[in-house]
Amino acid sequence: MIIQDLIVTPIAFPDPPLLNAAGVHEPLALRSVVQLVVAGGVVGLGEGWGERDVVEAMTCARDELVGQNVFDLAAVEAAVGRSISARDQGADTRLQTIVFAPIEVACHDAQGKILGVPVSTLLGGAVRDSVDFSGYLFYKWDRHLGTAAAPDRWGAALDPAGIVDQARTMIDEFGFRSLKLKAGVFHPDEEAAAIEALAEAFPGTPLRMDPNGVWSVETSVAIAERLRGTLQYLEDPTMGMAGMSAVAQDAGIPLATNMCVVGFDQIAEAVRTDAVQIILSDHHFWGGLRRTRELGVICETFGLGLSMHSNSHLGISLAAMTHVAAAMPRIDYACDTHYPWNGEHDILEPGAIEIRDGAVRVPTGPGLGVELDEGRLGELHALYTASGRTHRDDEAYMQAAQPDFVDVRPRF
Amino acid sequence: MIIQDLIVTPIAFPDPPLLNAAGVHEPLALRSVVQLVVAGGVVGLGEGWGERDVVEAMTCARDELVGQNVFDLAAVEAAVGRSISARDQGADTRLQTIVFAPIEVACHDAQGKILGVPVSTLLGGAVRDSVDFSGYLFYKWDRHLGTAAAPDRWGAALDPAGIVDQARTMIDEFGFRSLKLKAGVFHPDEEAAAIEALAEAFPGTPLRMDPNGVWSVETSVAIAERLRGTLQYLEDPTMGMAGMSAVAQDAGIPLATNMCVVGFDQIAEAVRTDAVQIILSDHHFWGGLRRTRELGVICETFGLGLSMHSNSHLGISLAAMTHVAAAMPRIDYACDTHYPWNGEHDILEPGAIEIRDGAVRVPTGPGLGVELDEGRLGELHALYTASGRTHRDDEAYMQAAQPDFVDVRPRF
Ligand SMILES: [Mg+2]
Ligand SMILES: [Mg+2]
Repeated sequence: MIIQDLIVTPIAFPDPPLLNAAGVHEPLALRSVVQLVVAGGVVGLGEGWGERDVVEAMTCARDELVGQNVFDLAAVEAAVGRSISARDQGADTRLQTIVFAPIEVACHDAQGKILGVPVSTLLGGAVRDSVDFSGYLFYKWDRHLGTAAAPDRWGAALDPAGIVDQARTMIDEFGFRSLKLKAGVFHPDEEAAAIEALAEAFPGTPLRMDPNGVWSVETSVAIAERLRGTLQYLEDPTMGMAGMSAVAQDAGIPLATNMCVVGFDQIAEAVRTDAVQIILSDHHFWGGLRRTRELGVICETFGLGLSMHSNSHLGISLAAMTHVAAAMPRIDYACDTHYPWNGEHDILEPGAIEIRDGAVRVPTGPGLGVELDEGRLGELHALYTASGRTHRDDEAYMQAAQPDFVDVRPRF
Repeated sequence: MIIQDLIVTPIAFPDPPLLNAAGVHEPLALRSVVQLVVAGGVVGLGEGWGERDVVEAMTCARDELVGQNVFDLAAVEAAVGRSISARDQGADTRLQTIVFAPIEVACHDAQGKILGVPVSTLLGGAVRDSVDFSGYLFYKWDRHLGTAAAPDRWGAALDPAGIVDQARTMIDEFGFRSLKLKAGVFHPDEEAAAIEALAEAFPGTPLRMDPNGVWSVETSVAIAERLRGTLQYLEDPTMGMAGMSAVAQDAGIPLATNMCVVGFDQIAEAVRTDAVQIILSDHHFWGGLRRTRELGVICETFGLGLSMHSNSHLGISLAAMTHVAAAMPRIDYACDTHYPWNGEHDILEPGAIEIRDGAVRVPTGPGLGVELDEGRLGELHALYTASGRTHRDDEAYMQAAQPDFVDVRPRF
């Protein structure tokens, strides 16, 4: 049960040109894959952020991790903390959380493989055998800039009709029973019209939208009023706790967040000011699977709703998200996932984890219940290396198309 | 890792005549010992309440537990729930919590023994290697009613001088560095005088008192004013959330509780009304070690203090309390324990768990790190059987000495 090695592999994989408040997704998304080698030959898998500084900090954690017991998560977290402090005494504690998360997932995967039980069991036990996800709709271009290629298989979505078409494709392919629109791109009235078009096309399907804080308080309230009875919840309409609290007072729709409350130290104020009614958990920045379950307990205790946030990710993350969601005492809404946009580039042996009928069956095999395809991992690492990319910059990529674009919030 | 058997052994052991708001401790305290037999021969230990209805419900859980995976705590809890519902559809959910707790401890002990790691590691990892406990002082008679025996070794404590003497003995024997007085017995002014006498005799030693809700709001505030600057905290001065909230507003001393907030469903109101500033956890009624750690996370998140409550108990419970306290992200005060009053009757092989310098070293052996003395267990089970006792009744025992005694609260 002693950790013998940590192998961190940064990867890049193709990502469609998805529009959002920050700009547009670049042609390659970055991610890191963690392999934690434990004495006896078990290898735990984790997937994390792919920004260069995160990958470097993860890689440097190796020496402190070797020799730790994979079942002693506090010791593993302390080891990560030491390695980060050694490189930069003043490092943001958030960096530690983000570096620790995929390592903590890998510890859980290794623990489960050693014990022959699924990760959900280690998190207190699955209370459901499948986890619902929502179809994550994006405004998008039909192809990346400067490519001579044909449009991608999703095509463009730049108006309500385009969004409805995209939703239909998503539902046909994955069976989603709820839908989320990434908003914050066009004028709020156009985006509200897209929601109304979805409501008409898919009656009874729960709908949400997420403009990533790009609206003013006034705009947020106005859109909430327009979409009251149509939206299940409204996600991060405006920036900051005070703004969210002001919107919440008049919205008449629950507000969700993965921007305004992103750490345990912000929850008490959010409860006190009733700024958010739903927290979108994300084990990648809440400090791993165990802490995410603890967040779920807090939400249950304080009557906050709980759902799950997603960034662009592959199957190791999807498996981890599914296991922790399965072990949540209560999860109130279908979770978010970018997997339909990126899953075809996955680095796992196929079949273990897939979205069907809008849900992922909780893997019942040991650990995360997924197996790495080392060949695919090598290919995506080569793509990463060849790309020279170090971080995500949606704004710069948008400026290449639209030079006057600036990511200021609020913008509408 | 499959549970093959559950052996529940009710026990009784001698208890001194400790006075409290409910009356006085009877000559025998009741408790239950759980042995969870896992395929391969590992036996997990747990200790729980000894009331007849709890023991019966625990015993009846056996059939549902056999065949469960000892690592799947959700499945184990569900099995306990099914067995309780099968006996009584309308059973209080609190009964399930209390029955599950020692079984959950036994699961953790078995898990640790299987993996070769201490329970604290399974709870997220020890963040301290010893846990502070406080000396738990009681008003007491010098011997039980109707015995021709000589006074017990503690003698009487019926006034401030008696309490100071008792504290001195406790400190000499166990090295406690903080003290708690079980109050609610005599007039609040006499009890406040005892606290003042302790403050004089042991300057700088943190002091607390616990009248178990027997005071009115007015009395509570008056005593708090008198002892401001002397008490570290005041525990359950009055009954109920509204009363505690009223006291908290004027007390000028933090209020602690193991009566007003005893479940997750009460925390939100307590935070909203600022009724308590410190929660005394107790894994026996908060649903086991994992839930207790989750309570700790909630306290940390909402700026509530955290300490630990105790009923009369033996060493398995002390070990479990120590492991979970060691794994708490933050524990703010020395924990309570009755162990000095009962530990000489323990059913463990000696040496693994003991209070020294006011603290218990966190056992580093597998599981709880303690071993059962089967012979002693048999003796205390025989004592239980011979006693015919079914539940604790401090009030009736007090009435045998003082026929007009009635446990009404508030009383002062
Ligand atoms: Mg969001
Ligand atoms: Mg108490």
